[in-house]
Amino acid sequence: MTLSLNTAAPRGEQLESLLDQIMGVYSVSDDETALADDIEAFLKEYPHLDVRRHGDTIVASTAFGRPSRVILAGHIDTVPVIDNFPPKWLEPGDPLIRGDVAAAHPGERVLWGRGATDMKASDAVMLHLAATLDGSTPETTPKADLTFVFYDHEEVAAEKNGLRKVVESHPDWIAGDFAIIGEPTNCGIEGGCNGTIRFDVVTHGVAAHSARAWMGENAIHKAAGILNRLAAYEPADVEVDGLVYREGLNATLISGGKGTNVIPDECRVHVNYRFAPDKTLAEAKALMMGADAGAELGNGEHVATGGVFEGYGIEMKDESPSARPGMDAPLAVSLADLVRERTGREPLAKLGWTDVARFSQLGIPAVNLGAGDPLLAHKHDEQLPASELPLLADILLAWLV
Amino acid sequence: MTLSLNTAAPRGEQLESLLDQIMGVYSVSDDETALADDIEAFLKEYPHLDVRRHGDTIVASTAFGRPSRVILAGHIDTVPVIDNFPPKWLEPGDPLIRGDVAAAHPGERVLWGRGATDMKASDAVMLHLAATLDGSTPETTPKADLTFVFYDHEEVAAEKNGLRKVVESHPDWIAGDFAIIGEPTNCGIEGGCNGTIRFDVVTHGVAAHSARAWMGENAIHKAAGILNRLAAYEPADVEVDGLVYREGLNATLISGGKGTNVIPDECRVHVNYRFAPDKTLAEAKALMMGADAGAELGNGEHVATGGVFEGYGIEMKDESPSARPGMDAPLAVSLADLVRERTGREPLAKLGWTDVARFSQLGIPAVNLGAGDPLLAHKHDEQLPASELPLLADILLAWLV
Repeated sequence: MTLSLNTAAPRGEQLESLLDQIMGVYSVSDDETALADDIEAFLKEYPHLDVRRHGDTIVASTAFGRPSRVILAGHIDTVPVIDNFPPKWLEPGDPLIRGDVAAAHPGERVLWGRGATDMKASDAVMLHLAATLDGSTPETTPKADLTFVFYDHEEVAAEKNGLRKVVESHPDWIAGDFAIIGEPTNCGIEGGCNGTIRFDVVTHGVAAHSARAWMGENAIHKAAGILNRLAAYEPADVEVDGLVYREGLNATLISGGKGTNVIPDECRVHVNYRFAPDKTLAEAKALMMGADAGAELGNGEHVATGGVFEGYGIEMKDESPSARPGMDAPLAVSLADLVRERTGREPLAKLGWTDVARFSQLGIPAVNLGAGDPLLAHKHDEQLPASELPLLADILLAWLV
Repeated sequence: MTLSLNTAAPRGEQLESLLDQIMGVYSVSDDETALADDIEAFLKEYPHLDVRRHGDTIVASTAFGRPSRVILAGHIDTVPVIDNFPPKWLEPGDPLIRGDVAAAHPGERVLWGRGATDMKASDAVMLHLAATLDGSTPETTPKADLTFVFYDHEEVAAEKNGLRKVVESHPDWIAGDFAIIGEPTNCGIEGGCNGTIRFDVVTHGVAAHSARAWMGENAIHKAAGILNRLAAYEPADVEVDGLVYREGLNATLISGGKGTNVIPDECRVHVNYRFAPDKTLAEAKALMMGADAGAELGNGEHVATGGVFEGYGIEMKDESPSARPGMDAPLAVSLADLVRERTGREPLAKLGWTDVARFSQLGIPAVNLGAGDPLLAHKHDEQLPASELPLLADILLAWLV
């Protein structure tokens, strides 16, 4: 199968049709191959694109000989479905349309289902731009060369991230002067992003029959101190380059115990620290476990020598740096001006971690700009009002051409 | 297959052979049928026994017309194996023999493997008594009629307990004036038992993406209060009828969270309260959750109205009453005197829950008296010095005949 695009139809219909088609292909992380195949086949139909593939990541570039290059990137995986696949279009008045969406978009059709906002709507717009900005007329000739990246494994551990892998294996594929990532922002600009680290905080005890608990040592009871420190933590608001980043420190998983009648010999609290871009990865880790704890990805458990979890065992699970907003780059300034004009929106801080940070590390200024409400991402009632598609397409076209 | 007994061999060899045979049949809870089949077939070879079966529980009774009846009961299931099945005999000096066992039983063979102490050694002695106390000579004629009960599902939730089921379905099979349960006691008498209740203590929150934690409510952080109360609890020593019972309150399992990047909407702490026989089941529950919380087995979650976990959700999972020691029953007194004479041991409080409590509820005084060290029960290096078999057999024979 490939995707179909009827350029004779009104543009709104083209965008909705593309979104409909890619929403209909199940692509929860680890299952992106079918959608990557479709996207690759679709893009290969356009001779103005040089289409390459690494794993399930598709990179398509123009070669118009422009002096600068803009990267437009979108991940094609989704978080797991929660009774929200396959997708469906909802007509105005449908009770599945959220109240806030209906109020903000009265009389509008809504696409409901997994990936609607995070982030297949932006993917659909980017696919449309890739196919139609072919350099054949002034209206379809961008001021910069374009590189489109559709990548896998964004919603899981950083080590599986398709953009990361293609940057490592083919750094020349991802060169450019500015990047836009289509993470949902309600078509506003969100700059930079919080960094994120995830790690287990571990307690140890001694197993025993619970009828003779005093012969053992209860590892779950010892975890009280971990939860107390988490419950007492107050997240900070941190201003960086004029944007305000809100931090967060949360246990997301907890497990311990081997049986209903056994004193538990281990308890693990999985902690996620989201930190503002005023901190490097190393500084964030130091705040959690001390500067010299030595816990690194894949090297097992180490005792925290300081920080919030001083004295507890730490096992690193995932880490991704923050990115400063980069709103001083000239291309960022012009894009921000255009978005302000079209939507009235000022640039905001991006709170969730996105691959903006990866471009930031490559020295490529990058912002998030995408269709859909970021607060609906990952929800069971994830949904997108139809007007977000032409709004995003209009902004990008006006800026690119 | 059935069990074989060569009564021409020395009695020690007969006991070891029976133990060897039943240890060799895997009988982790839920898999007792093969061993129940073997025991049923074996007992049915003896015409002085009336053998009945309910599920995987075998009840064999004599009908010598004695004025009183003694019940001897043993469970035939074991806890799961931990690289300790099949069993093996260890010769003196074998490094698998625990230091404490070797020191207390120098030069003695040891049977190593799952069920050695809990409680197939006592089962083997009871099978031997059942087969040989046939009333054919004065030496093989007991003063009381005997009922032997070999039952399934003791090591799991009370609702599956084979003794419980046979008491409910055939109460007439389990009539008697005194009962001995062969739970391991090092051939001493242990009286009564702690009661036990198990329940989940539950917190609720609101799920959200962990990048926007303030939109959710962290159920794991809320569990800090549960663990603080558990960590602060000091177990009491309670004296009942001259024996001292040590209580315990422990989390044995904890779980919570739905994903590494999701604010958890539920956390469950599985708690086991072991309470002394000065308390009824209702009194014990009141101490945990208030007298009127209304949480009962199978009726879901209820908020604790008082007690240790006041304010938290409670879901009952298992409950078994305590049993007072009953050391004032005349048969208990004579058995305690005999054990004191043979072993020098005074009666002790039984701390773990045993089916003594079930007999106690039927109005049948009962004690624990069995071969093997109770501290080795459920361990991976569970083992039994051979001399425990004739010691238990001698005590029971001297008291019964």
